[in-house]
Amino acid sequence: MLTVKAYAAPSATEPLVPTTIERRDVGAKDVLIEIRYAGICHSDIHTVRGEWGDIAYPQVVGHEIVGVVTEVGSEVTGHKVGDRVGVGCMVNSCRVCENCLAGEENYCLEGNTGTYTAVDRDGTITQGGYSTHIVVDEDFVLRVPESIPYEAAAPLLCAGITTYSPLAHWKAGPGKRVAVVGMGGLGHMAVKFAHAMGAEVTVLSQSLSKKDDGLRLGADHYYATSDPSTFAELKNEFDIIINTVSAELDINAYLRLLRLNGTLVNVGAPPEALGIKVFTLFGNRRTFAGSSIGGIRETQEMLDFCAEHGIAAEVEVIDADYINEAYERVLTSDVRYRFVIDIVSMR
Amino acid sequence: MLTVKAYAAPSATEPLVPTTIERRDVGAKDVLIEIRYAGICHSDIHTVRGEWGDIAYPQVVGHEIVGVVTEVGSEVTGHKVGDRVGVGCMVNSCRVCENCLAGEENYCLEGNTGTYTAVDRDGTITQGGYSTHIVVDEDFVLRVPESIPYEAAAPLLCAGITTYSPLAHWKAGPGKRVAVVGMGGLGHMAVKFAHAMGAEVTVLSQSLSKKDDGLRLGADHYYATSDPSTFAELKNEFDIIINTVSAELDINAYLRLLRLNGTLVNVGAPPEALGIKVFTLFGNRRTFAGSSIGGIRETQEMLDFCAEHGIAAEVEVIDADYINEAYERVLTSDVRYRFVIDIVSMR
Repeated sequence: MLTVKAYAAPSATEPLVPTTIERRDVGAKDVLIEIRYAGICHSDIHTVRGEWGDIAYPQVVGHEIVGVVTEVGSEVTGHKVGDRVGVGCMVNSCRVCENCLAGEENYCLEGNTGTYTAVDRDGTITQGGYSTHIVVDEDFVLRVPESIPYEAAAPLLCAGITTYSPLAHWKAGPGKRVAVVGMGGLGHMAVKFAHAMGAEVTVLSQSLSKKDDGLRLGADHYYATSDPSTFAELKNEFDIIINTVSAELDINAYLRLLRLNGTLVNVGAPPEALGIKVFTLFGNRRTFAGSSIGGIRETQEMLDFCAEHGIAAEVEVIDADYINEAYERVLTSDVRYRFVIDIVSMR
Repeated sequence: MLTVKAYAAPSATEPLVPTTIERRDVGAKDVLIEIRYAGICHSDIHTVRGEWGDIAYPQVVGHEIVGVVTEVGSEVTGHKVGDRVGVGCMVNSCRVCENCLAGEENYCLEGNTGTYTAVDRDGTITQGGYSTHIVVDEDFVLRVPESIPYEAAAPLLCAGITTYSPLAHWKAGPGKRVAVVGMGGLGHMAVKFAHAMGAEVTVLSQSLSKKDDGLRLGADHYYATSDPSTFAELKNEFDIIINTVSAELDINAYLRLLRLNGTLVNVGAPPEALGIKVFTLFGNRRTFAGSSIGGIRETQEMLDFCAEHGIAAEVEVIDADYINEAYERVLTSDVRYRFVIDIVSMR
């Protein structure tokens, strides 16, 4: 066992505090990673505060992890000491269900093993990336291309793949009109990806406060959803809408912005059921979909796409002792566009 | 103007009564059809009872119409006197929007002109097929293949295309597992189509009372949704679910039956919003869709498919003076599987 430093939530209501946790010994198929940066995802906050269900405490979160390989198990073939690597939202899956066999481990029928709060194969609860080291099965470790700075790569492992996957699946590209709802950690990546894929990109944000950024990152158009005329003007407009907002919104109003055969994909995760009017879907044969991260193969494809197109996340690097303040700022959308913890500050 | 016999609803609360209505003179592009049979669709009942909004009375409904051409306008090229023809749910559209130009007049962005209760080009309210004759623009008149008996063809114009279109769009075929929810007018056609397309077909019906019929019409499996074990057993099973039920049901329970990339398509039209849990859609990247009839080109394709595969509706032929009793029986699902009015009884 390896004792490593980490920041953990002691309970649902207390701030995160420095602590130590145990990592398993490096198994034959395992990779030991010295973590360099870990992104702060809104899911981390929902999780530690028990908003997505009860969890065991103390709990370390973080599933946007990049670092360098410092040790590999005897049977590891895909990674070597010194490699720049990343770990995202999952660290294992059943590997035998039809979805795993199709390379869609994120949709493992037994549920993939989450990077934190999941029951690992050895019965322990997985602990995330707000930590100096992590031990992960090599099959769930990604290669981070040289050209992407570590800190800007970290958010790609969740915010990146979460938005890349639906854009790729629903075929964003030349001739397609894509709207991105919400200009936050996920939204700003969706804008970059959709633009790089060749689509015409529109941001639908509550206000115009981030309009300059949106246009700079690749959006062709930028509308405020607080202005009702937006919904009249953009009716029947989009082939794909990526909704990154987790709060409840007037989902039928957004669905009506879809043109023939258009799809609104929720990657935001509101806990409440959304009231979908079937008559709204009848118009233009619209569809409402969900998408959850991506498989390992597709996550690697996304990282390589980022390198090819010079894309990465816009980040604000913080020290570990700023995590709790960062959480408060995430909750008020006061970040452009992702906090990333410099893990050196944790050593 | 042509005065013709019809059955009309005098108000939202009174039974339908025999009456006469006016049909417009046959224009240059029009076809006069002597109606032989008209199907009774649940939509007819919702409409005349004002359940889908206020309408003007008296109103003649019926949008599953077959008959024979008895007169054509001077510029008609696609139909001639004596032809066996059909008319479905729409009799016109704007013809210039992107959806009309794509041959999807059913999704006309201005709204297609419904066969009844719509404002026609001349400002009158369209009157449906419970009538001895109808005058329709030739572009919205379908050819009914010789091999399909008139009475069994009528329901194809709504129940048929409503289920054929989503099965074709979402590519029901060999290797695909299709579930049909509801074994009524729409459901029994969905079973026949999905089977003829080569899919593995499962009926999900409230009870097993129509199981023998379901298997005879082409289903491979038949489950009662009143049995909770159905939902456990069939989890992650289907590529396509066609929901023909207009009543509210536990939609998330049905969504969980979809496997990777599966789609639940509602063709039933519940007026209430359906509470969709995004987390349900996250699993297996599920989608929830709506589909509304089909375009003219696809409706003709469906009729030709029926002729090729020896498919038609299962019908109970009634005289016009039985319409009101038939309505009551439709409301209790007491029909196998579509009432069709013999319009000769109306002359």
